[in-house]
Amino acid sequence: MCRWIAYSGTPVLLSHVLFEPQHNLIDQSLRSRMGVETTNGDGFGIGWYTQDLTTPAILRDVGPAWNNRNLQEVAHHVRSGLFFAHIRATTGTAVQQTNCHPFRRDRWLWMHNGAISEFHRLKRELALAVDPALYSDIEGSTDSELMFFLALTFGLTEDPPGAVARMAGLVEETGHRHGVQHPLQMTVAVADGERLWAFRYSSEGSSRSLFYSTRLDALRALHSDAAFLRGIGDETRLVVSEPLGDLPGSWNEVPESSYGIVQPGGDALHAFQPRS
Amino acid sequence: MCRWIAYSGTPVLLSHVLFEPQHNLIDQSLRSRMGVETTNGDGFGIGWYTQDLTTPAILRDVGPAWNNRNLQEVAHHVRSGLFFAHIRATTGTAVQQTNCHPFRRDRWLWMHNGAISEFHRLKRELALAVDPALYSDIEGSTDSELMFFLALTFGLTEDPPGAVARMAGLVEETGHRHGVQHPLQMTVAVADGERLWAFRYSSEGSSRSLFYSTRLDALRALHSDAAFLRGIGDETRLVVSEPLGDLPGSWNEVPESSYGIVQPGGDALHAFQPRS
Amino acid sequence: MCRWIAYSGTPVLLSHVLFEPQHNLIDQSLRSRMGVETTNGDGFGIGWYTQDLTTPAILRDVGPAWNNRNLQEVAHHVRSGLFFAHIRATTGTAVQQTNCHPFRRDRWLWMHNGAISEFHRLKRELALAVDPALYSDIEGSTDSELMFFLALTFGLTEDPPGAVARMAGLVEETGHRHGVQHPLQMTVAVADGERLWAFRYSSEGSSRSLFYSTRLDALRALHSDAAFLRGIGDETRLVVSEPLGDLPGSWNEVPESSYGIVQPGGDALHAFQPRS
Amino acid sequence: MCRWIAYSGTPVLLSHVLFEPQHNLIDQSLRSRMGVETTNGDGFGIGWYTQDLTTPAILRDVGPAWNNRNLQEVAHHVRSGLFFAHIRATTGTAVQQTNCHPFRRDRWLWMHNGAISEFHRLKRELALAVDPALYSDIEGSTDSELMFFLALTFGLTEDPPGAVARMAGLVEETGHRHGVQHPLQMTVAVADGERLWAFRYSSEGSSRSLFYSTRLDALRALHSDAAFLRGIGDETRLVVSEPLGDLPGSWNEVPESSYGIVQPGGDALHAFQPRS
Repeated sequence: MCRWIAYSGTPVLLSHVLFEPQHNLIDQSLRSRMGVETTNGDGFGIGWYTQDLTTPAILRDVGPAWNNRNLQEVAHHVRSGLFFAHIRATTGTAVQQTNCHPFRRDRWLWMHNGAISEFHRLKRELALAVDPALYSDIEGSTDSELMFFLALTFGLTEDPPGAVARMAGLVEETGHRHGVQHPLQMTVAVADGERLWAFRYSSEGSSRSLFYSTRLDALRALHSDAAFLRGIGDETRLVVSEPLGDLPGSWNEVPESSYGIVQPGGDALHAFQPRS
Repeated sequence: MCRWIAYSGTPVLLSHVLFEPQHNLIDQSLRSRMGVETTNGDGFGIGWYTQDLTTPAILRDVGPAWNNRNLQEVAHHVRSGLFFAHIRATTGTAVQQTNCHPFRRDRWLWMHNGAISEFHRLKRELALAVDPALYSDIEGSTDSELMFFLALTFGLTEDPPGAVARMAGLVEETGHRHGVQHPLQMTVAVADGERLWAFRYSSEGSSRSLFYSTRLDALRALHSDAAFLRGIGDETRLVVSEPLGDLPGSWNEVPESSYGIVQPGGDALHAFQPRS
Repeated sequence: MCRWIAYSGTPVLLSHVLFEPQHNLIDQSLRSRMGVETTNGDGFGIGWYTQDLTTPAILRDVGPAWNNRNLQEVAHHVRSGLFFAHIRATTGTAVQQTNCHPFRRDRWLWMHNGAISEFHRLKRELALAVDPALYSDIEGSTDSELMFFLALTFGLTEDPPGAVARMAGLVEETGHRHGVQHPLQMTVAVADGERLWAFRYSSEGSSRSLFYSTRLDALRALHSDAAFLRGIGDETRLVVSEPLGDLPGSWNEVPESSYGIVQPGGDALHAFQPRS
Repeated sequence: MCRWIAYSGTPVLLSHVLFEPQHNLIDQSLRSRMGVETTNGDGFGIGWYTQDLTTPAILRDVGPAWNNRNLQEVAHHVRSGLFFAHIRATTGTAVQQTNCHPFRRDRWLWMHNGAISEFHRLKRELALAVDPALYSDIEGSTDSELMFFLALTFGLTEDPPGAVARMAGLVEETGHRHGVQHPLQMTVAVADGERLWAFRYSSEGSSRSLFYSTRLDALRALHSDAAFLRGIGDETRLVVSEPLGDLPGSWNEVPESSYGIVQPGGDALHAFQPRS
């Protein structure tokens, strides 16, 4: 299992989010509190959008995030208003750059915490469902990347919630046909450079933790003395596997079987159900 | 493209073969003379059989062989009577451990120099031909590993030449159906811990270079003063992408469209043709 | 801080010691119970002696031990009667191969858990005390390697306990002169291919944990049904930062300010004091 | 030996300079024409200044530049008006991140191609000349980093040419005292975020190649049709180990024993002599 964080809002140095808060993602790589594994040291990745380039950048490496100097360098020198970060704890697949999140296709980023149960038995059938024109672009061996390619196959770039629902539906239907009771466990983040979608779902109705931050104006009203909150726009939002810091009122659980959209003009939270 | 070397014979320190000869494999990683690429610096691997364990060991890493200390350590401290070594020059797939040769399954090792032409277009169809029970064990993204899995599918462990012929036949048939003129270019080494098979073939009849060493007794008759040749049994044989050293009479080209078997009791050279 | 293990006795596959026991060293890399840090994921190393080569081999890498495939391969295919293994948790120095233990010089191996307090302030003065003929061979930046070079300077290859005592004395004297209250904290293992020395000492008299295994004949008398103990000679001994497994009576604490020698003909335990 | 490139001028994506020109630095990592070694695959590094942060970022890794994805990502997404890039061919010291250029201290960057002759013999004495307050900050084992620390010791941040002259003088004096005929061979680049200094010098008067680009206005007059030259300010300057591209009139050799300054308000070229 893994931990991740997605940021959307006022452009900031990545380090303000990745390194500075209490119990930040780097700290979670050593001491996750809510994850399945305490240690998330099997690779990491960040993906960030810049203001004028359509394709986001990704930086991924196979060692732990906590001792990686290149991650520190980039985080302390690059600003972004929409970025992802992910730390990995492998459930068996190889520790290699192509298995690190986020995954990218054109302007789309995807990252995941969770697993397809008994993936080894289901992998071939799921891989065959990937659009043949995309199949050869699969570079790694994870369930997470395959879920991305299935979502792309089902129209992710046109209708993200619909495509993720169809992906989840296919995974569940395939799993059930192979006798897997609870085939899917996922928290997924997707972005296109302007909007951010975050999904929380599991077949057993007991999903990995996922939280979103309170609107900044509300938080500022509660904590008028928090210097950290100044200079950040009201629209800024974080979606995280585990809360950072301990400012009361900062974090709200994404409900089971739901997804949120962070976007200009108003965020939203909706129910999520796999679709067959 | 790549370079490789396979050794069968008197157990020796790997370093005697990998580091000591003139123009050895490590030198070829920097200065290949006969390869498509001068530099083979995109990873390396060795695989070796021990006397009492059925499964061979493999050591693979993503950096160049020429500066890898762990390779030097193992080569200078491990003895084997049957081992492979491979240096990689990627033709585009990721530089990662799971794309480094040799590949292993149970007691079988496989390594390859060459390519499936327009692999990106043919990959999905070839992957579908892999035994469904094996599909999920594919870890990397190379044509070389997929060729191994196809050969396993076609009975490599029962009849290596037959399985490689069927693999080659499938690659050619699939390629031709997609309009690829010369689908396959390969020099392949396979071993099971006792025997070693080496194949040289290409659809266009112009295969990558491959050489085998002259029988040691004959070579000793020619060079009675070569200390290097003493203490090595007559049955010792090397198969290499490029000749090592410059002892006259040492090296013989493996003919086009043929394969050799190095085995106890007498080596053999046969014609090779893909089989559909 | 770190964790380590040293084995001397009947030649075994390294994996029998490194991977098979409960709470083995690989497990300690994720979940150390007695270490200063729970996670020891900043590199690892093994060093092993072979029967006929005087110089031991070392295999070291910068990632965590728990997901390293080359470590698994070598451990499952190499036998040794005297070997070291070490997992690293950096206290600030770079994560690089030359900072991984064990360190080697000719036939000598050295590994360490602990630290020189305020090393950054003392480093230069300690480095100047290294034999000028050795200085340029220091490859890394750790206190551990520098302690090795100081011990070499003070005659490690002639009188290991004496040289370690003088090294410790110099560190304490230098530290005290710079106002460091407790300059040294160390558990050190040294070997020359035949004998193994293990030291436990700290300036404050509260040293990192260190244990040695009970003599095998005594342990067998206690646990006549333990299959693991059969086929292993009575002289076999383990020295470890943390006990492996949970066989009652297996482990004995190395006392504060003492060192042990594991050697053919009878092991011994002695008091240790820094010497100025 | 190595190859490097330094850019000062209109902020551009690093990839415009590192990946796009003919015979760019990445190409030189595989096929250097003028270097001592054809292959420069023992690590690489880039350092870049941003507009609002005083400390530059550095990204360094131990594999070859030609297959590094993180380098490509950063180069294609980061803009800078002053940046360094370096590819390494080790002359023996370890391949590790702390031995990769550029080196940084506060707002200063340093990179080097060349060598101190018989460095192994001179290293200790040169290290002792480093300001004791700086000594412990040396992280790697190269002559290049030590030259940087000597220059810092001699006042690099106050008077770069003077400090480099004293560093070179010390290296020569120390070498001569140890019987080294030609102690120093160097092309060095230094920057402080506003200005760039480039030095070319060797004790034997036969220094590694170094070139600077023609002023852009002059080049535009020669090649009015070169789209690449549009949108780039006249003050833009490149200093390189080997010319990129083949635009006639683009490149000028930095003379033996000289240094250049690239700075706002007018560049300059001066004679350089070591100073004792």
